[in-house]
Amino acid sequence: MNIKELALQKHKEWNGKIEMISRVPVKTIEDLSIAYTPGVAEPCLEIQTDYNKCYDYTRRGNMVAVITDGTAVLGLGDIGPEAGMPVMEGKCVLFKEFADVDAFPICVRSKDIDEIVRTIYLISGSFGGINLEDISAPRCFEIERKLKEICDIPIFHDDQHGTAIVATAAMIGACRFAKKNIKDLKAVISGAGASAIAVTKLLMAIGLEDVILCDRQGAIYDGRENLNTEKEMIAKITNKNKKSGTLRDIMVETDVFFGLSGPGLVDGEMIKSMNENPFIFPMSNPVPEIFPEEAIAAGAAVVGTGRSDFPNQINNVLAFPGVFRGTLNCRASDINDDMNVAAAYAIANLIDDKDLREDYIIPSPFDERVANAVAKAVEEAARKSGVARV
Amino acid sequence: MNIKELALQKHKEWNGKIEMISRVPVKTIEDLSIAYTPGVAEPCLEIQTDYNKCYDYTRRGNMVAVITDGTAVLGLGDIGPEAGMPVMEGKCVLFKEFADVDAFPICVRSKDIDEIVRTIYLISGSFGGINLEDISAPRCFEIERKLKEICDIPIFHDDQHGTAIVATAAMIGACRFAKKNIKDLKAVISGAGASAIAVTKLLMAIGLEDVILCDRQGAIYDGRENLNTEKEMIAKITNKNKKSGTLRDIMVETDVFFGLSGPGLVDGEMIKSMNENPFIFPMSNPVPEIFPEEAIAAGAAVVGTGRSDFPNQINNVLAFPGVFRGTLNCRASDINDDMNVAAAYAIANLIDDKDLREDYIIPSPFDERVANAVAKAVEEAARKSGVARV
Repeated sequence: MNIKELALQKHKEWNGKIEMISRVPVKTIEDLSIAYTPGVAEPCLEIQTDYNKCYDYTRRGNMVAVITDGTAVLGLGDIGPEAGMPVMEGKCVLFKEFADVDAFPICVRSKDIDEIVRTIYLISGSFGGINLEDISAPRCFEIERKLKEICDIPIFHDDQHGTAIVATAAMIGACRFAKKNIKDLKAVISGAGASAIAVTKLLMAIGLEDVILCDRQGAIYDGRENLNTEKEMIAKITNKNKKSGTLRDIMVETDVFFGLSGPGLVDGEMIKSMNENPFIFPMSNPVPEIFPEEAIAAGAAVVGTGRSDFPNQINNVLAFPGVFRGTLNCRASDINDDMNVAAAYAIANLIDDKDLREDYIIPSPFDERVANAVAKAVEEAARKSGVARV
Repeated sequence: MNIKELALQKHKEWNGKIEMISRVPVKTIEDLSIAYTPGVAEPCLEIQTDYNKCYDYTRRGNMVAVITDGTAVLGLGDIGPEAGMPVMEGKCVLFKEFADVDAFPICVRSKDIDEIVRTIYLISGSFGGINLEDISAPRCFEIERKLKEICDIPIFHDDQHGTAIVATAAMIGACRFAKKNIKDLKAVISGAGASAIAVTKLLMAIGLEDVILCDRQGAIYDGRENLNTEKEMIAKITNKNKKSGTLRDIMVETDVFFGLSGPGLVDGEMIKSMNENPFIFPMSNPVPEIFPEEAIAAGAAVVGTGRSDFPNQINNVLAFPGVFRGTLNCRASDINDDMNVAAAYAIANLIDDKDLREDYIIPSPFDERVANAVAKAVEEAARKSGVARV
């Protein structure tokens, strides 16, 4: 049985990958009178008097909503809200299993930005944080920005920031392995969607200066035609010399490649045109921009992909469970760049200098130290940046 | 330590009464590739092709949302959405513990009917049913009606229909115990809110003909001033002789009293003015319209209250877990009166004729047979009435 058949059979057997359970006994009249009426009136009244007590008396402080509109599910595109739910449930499983964060999947039956924002805001009092998932670009940017403005809980679009954290962790690991300084490197990002832009911004936050994004029409530069708002903004802070050209043109004499685009867009010749010993991170999944063996044959010093069957897997599960664990631990009002950067370093720094190898610049998703290390670093960064509330 | 202090202390210790858990293992790369990417794409695609498969491949078919706007929480009134959450979590605990229904609490930060309806509709694809809770009347009627029109899953306002089912079960039990026919009885309902109206309608659905509701201004009759839409509608089908007067006036020479109003509204003299051996159900909670000992001293043949410390507790937990269990089992599109009536009979019929006593006309909330019996009856009624979908 191949993995497709097995996944289908297992999903049918499971009949849902998540389950709600009770944390309290209700076996006797007394149990009932404490957990439910009349006793339950007391915590209600306490919260009415002091809103913040909802974090003491309900599950809110450990509960994250995983929310999609189904418009950009995996690589499948706009498959509809209900069809996105197996992914959302999977995400909830990972939250719980990797970081003991309770997470609940919700699909929203609307594609209208303001309606989605309003809906999420209206239910946000039920949660300690919101993880947005698989919402198409550029809508996802506006949805996230508007929610951050109106909600009193942290909002995190994992496709952007989770990906940015793990990509940045890979970059940190590769630089340490190769003893290079990120400030000296020239990078090319293939793709200009939500994740590509977020990766670019976070890499710049840790010191990358020379970087060019390429979309289907080639290099993005300030003033180019056909740029949406997000691409215009990123064009202003990248590609300072306003280079134009195809991905192939742009990769010449660069040091780092990140692929957040599509399968097979890069060949060995393009790798060979780069500077010596480049870092190659073709993260398109399941089929990368170039397969590791071909990239290595063409001279890559370090290769990382999104796949579990190659070394250096750059997987969001390294980030989001710990990020929310740390955020919830200090009841942070936001998840900011400082926290994302701290998460990236926490992941990369789990590997000692002596253990770094070209095929081990980022820890395994199953390295049990990861979530704790990320949580600790994120909580600390939240405190330093003034968003922690307890 | 009294129950208030204990409830507060326990709620703080629990830090939430519910918890999300994973039903699937994610310990290995292979686990991850089946429950999450890339395997998870398969159930997504199946649901995209056939919407109904979301019931096979996700938890939807066993998942109920418990939703409030916090406007009528217990007897506390409009305490706000977040302050209502301890009650919603308690409800979720009961769903799970009594009928293995997964339930998730959501509070909506709006008091606008259309906005609440739209919000619930937009997230309804995540659930197999919606349990509305503690929403103030008459808004709750319109919210429920509008949701029933637009949602493809069952909508159940427990304060109305749950209460109606258990009150009707008590009435069935009392009639069987006293060997009376409901058609021959004259009933008075104190209260004209959501639950009082729902109780009246369901009692009429099982044969009650002579019934008068009283609000604060006295008897409700067709044409009276100060009636909202719901009261106008109920006035048209009750109080056929258009009696006017106070609750005290109306109770004279009747056989059944249901209290869904407020503490202490009834005294012994009022009971004495009724026909011989009346049924008295003062359900106001925690303080009933009249205490059982006083009602019995005044001649009541059967007394049932909402309280656990007196016999014949009329508690919604007898109804809602089994109602949803039966509804979800056959993926019913609606919860209709036939199903509610079936639930009431299922509860009452758990007590054999020979076991009926004046202090045992309705089973205990902890009678383990209840949820199953209700579920079975509700599922059967759903099939008969054509709303079952599997």
